[in-house]
Amino acid sequence: MNRRVIAFLLGHILLLEAAVMVPALIISLCMREFDSAWSFAVAIAITAAVGTGLTFIRPVNKAFYAAEGFVVTALSWISISFFGALPFWFSGCIPSLIDSFFETASGFTTTGASILTDVEVLPYGMLYWRSFTHWLGGMGVLVFLLAVVSVSKGEGYSLHLLRAESPGPDVGKMTPRLKQSAKLLYIIYIVLTVIEIILLLAGGMPVFDSFCTAFGTAGTGGFGVKNDSIAGYSQYIQIVVTVFMALFGINFNIYFLVLLRSWKNLFRDEELWGYLGIMLGSILLITWNVAPVFQYNWGEAFQQSAFQVSSVMTTTGFSTIDYNTWPQFSRSLLAMLMVVGASAGSTGGGVKVARIIIVFKLLRKELIRMLHPRAVHTVRISGKTVDNKVGKGVSVFMAAYFAVFTVSFLLISLDNMSLETNVTAVVSCLSNIGPGLDVVGPAGNFSQFSPISKLILSMDMLFGRLEFFPMILLFSPRLWSRRV
Amino acid sequence: MNRRVIAFLLGHILLLEAAVMVPALIISLCMREFDSAWSFAVAIAITAAVGTGLTFIRPVNKAFYAAEGFVVTALSWISISFFGALPFWFSGCIPSLIDSFFETASGFTTTGASILTDVEVLPYGMLYWRSFTHWLGGMGVLVFLLAVVSVSKGEGYSLHLLRAESPGPDVGKMTPRLKQSAKLLYIIYIVLTVIEIILLLAGGMPVFDSFCTAFGTAGTGGFGVKNDSIAGYSQYIQIVVTVFMALFGINFNIYFLVLLRSWKNLFRDEELWGYLGIMLGSILLITWNVAPVFQYNWGEAFQQSAFQVSSVMTTTGFSTIDYNTWPQFSRSLLAMLMVVGASAGSTGGGVKVARIIIVFKLLRKELIRMLHPRAVHTVRISGKTVDNKVGKGVSVFMAAYFAVFTVSFLLISLDNMSLETNVTAVVSCLSNIGPGLDVVGPAGNFSQFSPISKLILSMDMLFGRLEFFPMILLFSPRLWSRRV
Repeated sequence: MNRRVIAFLLGHILLLEAAVMVPALIISLCMREFDSAWSFAVAIAITAAVGTGLTFIRPVNKAFYAAEGFVVTALSWISISFFGALPFWFSGCIPSLIDSFFETASGFTTTGASILTDVEVLPYGMLYWRSFTHWLGGMGVLVFLLAVVSVSKGEGYSLHLLRAESPGPDVGKMTPRLKQSAKLLYIIYIVLTVIEIILLLAGGMPVFDSFCTAFGTAGTGGFGVKNDSIAGYSQYIQIVVTVFMALFGINFNIYFLVLLRSWKNLFRDEELWGYLGIMLGSILLITWNVAPVFQYNWGEAFQQSAFQVSSVMTTTGFSTIDYNTWPQFSRSLLAMLMVVGASAGSTGGGVKVARIIIVFKLLRKELIRMLHPRAVHTVRISGKTVDNKVGKGVSVFMAAYFAVFTVSFLLISLDNMSLETNVTAVVSCLSNIGPGLDVVGPAGNFSQFSPISKLILSMDMLFGRLEFFPMILLFSPRLWSRRV
Repeated sequence: MNRRVIAFLLGHILLLEAAVMVPALIISLCMREFDSAWSFAVAIAITAAVGTGLTFIRPVNKAFYAAEGFVVTALSWISISFFGALPFWFSGCIPSLIDSFFETASGFTTTGASILTDVEVLPYGMLYWRSFTHWLGGMGVLVFLLAVVSVSKGEGYSLHLLRAESPGPDVGKMTPRLKQSAKLLYIIYIVLTVIEIILLLAGGMPVFDSFCTAFGTAGTGGFGVKNDSIAGYSQYIQIVVTVFMALFGINFNIYFLVLLRSWKNLFRDEELWGYLGIMLGSILLITWNVAPVFQYNWGEAFQQSAFQVSSVMTTTGFSTIDYNTWPQFSRSLLAMLMVVGASAGSTGGGVKVARIIIVFKLLRKELIRMLHPRAVHTVRISGKTVDNKVGKGVSVFMAAYFAVFTVSFLLISLDNMSLETNVTAVVSCLSNIGPGLDVVGPAGNFSQFSPISKLILSMDMLFGRLEFFPMILLFSPRLWSRRV
């Protein structure tokens, strides 16, 4: 393990975090929130100091392999969640350090689960920072670092870092120039965010709310600035948010294809159509199921159904209604969508539609093989052959999900909440959704859990965001026994 | 598809079923339950008539491949559940045909889920038949057919039938002589059942109760003859049942190893130690968790904990207590044990410990590969190399489980029961456990579901018992379009 290079990169991440906290400090000053401003100033100073200290550790050799990539990624995400939590804690906005860590990890991982019962009492600076963590975490902090900063001349680090941080099974197929890819990703991301802000402003949403809502949508995070999330805004705004949540749940490669006018590749992208198909099918089924709740006002039923499906499937977690009170079929379908999640290569979480498609194709192949033992059948997705490695990768991912789920679920059960609360809380954190059902439903929050459960759930968000392996490796004794 | 050979074999299965219904008829006559006797007589006549009719269809060719094996197995299990349901329906003991089918499928698949609210009103003949379905279904009806009847001179059918019916990933490694294997399996099964009956009689249990309880234990089914299951019997009897449930959840190959005094192979059987380890660990954790419920009477807490763990993990489903009222940690752990299930090659259901071990070994291998990309690491279980085929088989099994779970769960959600009820009802049926939690908890039953949900859950039991592929293939249009 090349510990020096890890420390060196970690230092840069912390310097970056200190820099992106500055706007929050400025907002606090402008709004004359001097308590907040002071907390941000101290947090920035500490983060920058630690970051600078770490960058003094110069790597003595360039050894940087997959293991180093995983460790840097896991440590970076834990560190930014910890240092990003300091302003909340210093200012007393969130009196407990564990709660502050939970809230910040939830922000960066774009989970959107909250331990706050009242967000409207938070100062503007804090609300801005809380929403901005979604925006930064959505596309990835390491990708950001690669896009804007030249850490070193080589691109040796880039591939391993991108692999460890990016969601889904298919990374790096866009362009071989990684730095350029990272930049393009961020440009698309910024453009989509700006369009959403403009559309929200056009609907009469206040400027501050528009920015924070757009940050929450773009990162598919779900932190809002109102206690009732999006419920209090106009129908137009709810529709804009619905559409943009769905857009940010699409694989960003699709936007490349649109830019390149590569319609043929677009039309044969099975994940895109799978994603849109599951989404539309679920919206229609839920509309039919909840129609009685809306006195058969089909338009409203459709709009509310579309919002919840878009919010849950993309793992954003904004809400306009308490779907805990909906009929059981709708609740069950939403629970299944939580597990499925958004597309690979999007800002959304969950298992990802691509993995579901791969698993079902493997299942179909196996069934065909049972009928025709000697037939040769190749699994293809979007016209490309899925090799055994991808298939195995998916099953290992499922195993990791199941393992982390089991341990977390049993441990938080010690708090004696309902089974429904515990199962959906863990799934919600692992899939970076935000709300679950029952106590942690859209009208509830995570404040009732014990500190130890909050810590476990915070780690679950990081496990889920980094797709398990970086975090599991970090806790593996074998990793640290290696000498380089 | 060789339809003639399928019909021919199906005919033999029905003749066998007609024969094993005769003791129930005799018991009914002895007990002067003439309504029951009449129902059994008519059911036997119909079953034998249909069976005889089918055996007249002589196969014109010997083509019998995996596909035929799967279809015979799936059709056999559906048919015996249907014809075995007739006595319940004719006698009016269960007024609805769907309910009768549910109860019989639950019996043969050794699920033990019931739609009856009061079993004590049932005549002796019916109670005997209900429990006997567990015993026959536990080891497998096709295995029974192979063991006792010579359908044809060739052993061509045997392998494919055994493969399709036997639980777990590792079949047919005991001896190459399949007919002999089937006989040996049944001899061990009978001997263990007889020992349990003797021990139960020694504890003062009535003869009828001893036989039925032993049938329920041996098949890891869980139908009892009392409304309170095993709760009303003495502590001695509860302990005997606890131990025998655990014994019937062990891979029957282990008893071969014991008979052969092959201690070395016994000690390195990872599934055995995994199974016993999970069981003991869970018992201890639950004992600690429920101690307050028993006013810190550790002995009683341990005994009750052991009973529930043994019952749930082996998917038997006997109960002595309503664990719905236990602390959440214990309920969660029991819910996870439901998913894990018993050993491969036992009469128990669930995902099976062997599959869990394989999946975790694959995960571990993948983690090592990430750290040492060039290292060659082979996955071994019990000293034997696990090839890619087994690994893939396990992930395809998981995919099938997930697919059937999702569809069933969404459909039964239309009944508007709680999420906890729906999730555990489907898992309970797919894993052939019996009770779930909440409405379908150990003190509840499945009677509140709608007829369509009962039918779906009946099919789930068959899906689970046959480990998905035979049933999925049966519903696959591709299968029936083949001409042979």
